[in-house]
Amino acid sequence: MSREVKIAVLGGGSWGTAIVKMLTENLDTVYWYIRNTNAIEYIKKEGHNPNYLTSVELHTEYLKLTDDINEAVKNSDLLIFAIPSAFLSAELDKLNKPLTDKIIFSAIKGIVPETGLIVGEHFHEKYGVPFENIGVITGPCHAEEVALERLSYLTIACADKSKAKLLAEHFDSHYIKTKISNDIIGTEYAAMLKNIYAIAAGIAHGLGYGDNFQSVLMSNAIREMKRFTKRIHNIDRNINRSAYLGDLLVTGYSTFSRNRLFGNMIGKGYTVKSAMMEMNMVAEGYYAVKSAHKIKSKFKKKVKTPIIDAVYRILYEGKNAKKTIKELTDKLD
Amino acid sequence: MSREVKIAVLGGGSWGTAIVKMLTENLDTVYWYIRNTNAIEYIKKEGHNPNYLTSVELHTEYLKLTDDINEAVKNSDLLIFAIPSAFLSAELDKLNKPLTDKIIFSAIKGIVPETGLIVGEHFHEKYGVPFENIGVITGPCHAEEVALERLSYLTIACADKSKAKLLAEHFDSHYIKTKISNDIIGTEYAAMLKNIYAIAAGIAHGLGYGDNFQSVLMSNAIREMKRFTKRIHNIDRNINRSAYLGDLLVTGYSTFSRNRLFGNMIGKGYTVKSAMMEMNMVAEGYYAVKSAHKIKSKFKKKVKTPIIDAVYRILYEGKNAKKTIKELTDKLD
Repeated sequence: MSREVKIAVLGGGSWGTAIVKMLTENLDTVYWYIRNTNAIEYIKKEGHNPNYLTSVELHTEYLKLTDDINEAVKNSDLLIFAIPSAFLSAELDKLNKPLTDKIIFSAIKGIVPETGLIVGEHFHEKYGVPFENIGVITGPCHAEEVALERLSYLTIACADKSKAKLLAEHFDSHYIKTKISNDIIGTEYAAMLKNIYAIAAGIAHGLGYGDNFQSVLMSNAIREMKRFTKRIHNIDRNINRSAYLGDLLVTGYSTFSRNRLFGNMIGKGYTVKSAMMEMNMVAEGYYAVKSAHKIKSKFKKKVKTPIIDAVYRILYEGKNAKKTIKELTDKLD
Repeated sequence: MSREVKIAVLGGGSWGTAIVKMLTENLDTVYWYIRNTNAIEYIKKEGHNPNYLTSVELHTEYLKLTDDINEAVKNSDLLIFAIPSAFLSAELDKLNKPLTDKIIFSAIKGIVPETGLIVGEHFHEKYGVPFENIGVITGPCHAEEVALERLSYLTIACADKSKAKLLAEHFDSHYIKTKISNDIIGTEYAAMLKNIYAIAAGIAHGLGYGDNFQSVLMSNAIREMKRFTKRIHNIDRNINRSAYLGDLLVTGYSTFSRNRLFGNMIGKGYTVKSAMMEMNMVAEGYYAVKSAHKIKSKFKKKVKTPIIDAVYRILYEGKNAKKTIKELTDKLD
């Protein structure tokens, strides 16, 4: 892979916009696929995304904007996917060329609902992308703070560390520090699991539990995440690094997290359906907990995941949130 | 130690008041030493502490209040110290009997300034209390949430686990769950170190760093705490348990923590002296970082503690906070 690698960002949401901002600090050309044609026209004219991170000044002179995913893919060697996992399949269906010769980095947290796979696995299994060409971009990083140029750390993971390193260099700037990792499986599962724990934190908060309990919940969540990721891919992994613990904390303590907000509504007594309607969007942890529960059921050797179990029972088995969380409190330490 | 152990709580601050509240859920007699005679009179008359956790209804029928520390000590087998470490020496100077036959539990977070020792070590070295009679009561636990009867978890640590277990049973209630541990050294150092990390979090916040950085800071802090406590007392310790990580989080994320508040003022440009005057109280982490720095300098094998080092340089060497934290950001990952 040459240093003149051509990069496309796919997705015009807040995280996609943040990624474009970070990359154009360093690169003269970034392809950017946004489904919404009106948004493209607005960005070209006004230099701002009309829908997400609206305050960010975009360097349009470096952008090749397109509403045709195939054009963005055709012109690039490295694709960064920042499309919510719930919509990924529909977007990928539009592709008219294979992805086998592309390097794919996922900036998506979650599970592809259609296949129940994490994003890297989805590209590998459905599109034949070899694992050494698959990577993950992970936080802890709220897009909103990237917009404000507040110092943030990203972890860029790829089985082929040289590819992670190359991409990391394109992200580094006065407000971004990058770390590289080869743990694509662990970082991706961690990013997915943390959304479940954020839902748990929200439910507890909604039920009136306080900061003391929240800290116990997070302390148990990181141990549960360690057990779960170890069972998925048993490598020597320091779960307290920022890509795992940091990512859990930035979400679990965020009052802006959609997952925490969704959980909070459940804790306050909303049904799953009414909480989703009220929010008018989908919390990724809602799908993640279903997948985690399914994945877990296939483990030969059982793993203790009381928090995942509790969230699953509340969201999918209609169990009473108050009672289920009370039972959970007896399993935590 | 019989089950009819007599317990005295020493100290009338918010944590002492919370401990008395928790114990009188289970015990018919609790000795309570408060230095301030007016407070005692008020509590007897009104059933509330006039100065701390004022909303808590105290079961005065179960309380033996005294302003004479010797009376409380004389009548009890087990003493729970909840006096700020900065005032502990002065209070202990009043004792006219030895403590050698007492069981001592410390609910104090910090270092005794006169000796530079953590509280357990202070009782051992200065008062000849054997280590098997020394214990620690630790969180994660804001006293304010105990007052509200919000579910909280305490860790009761003692080298002699049977003593920890006995005391734990007296704390358990519908809003308190207890865990026992034999790691008195590790839990006490963790409780001390977390105050330093809360100061660091405050400084960063005061300087304008956001939630993304905070999560990276906490992720690095827990790894630093692990290295430090391992060097002090090398046992098999899961640093992600609530007594360590939970305690770090409840303090590091609390906007009410005195240590975080103190750090925040330093970050905003106050001098150490003016921040202390403005707060009209002392942040325990201020003493803790001096001790941690001294202890560390005596380690034969060096240990990497960039956060402690940065806080020390800012508070004791007059180094510029903005510059020092910026240097720190390069050492975190």
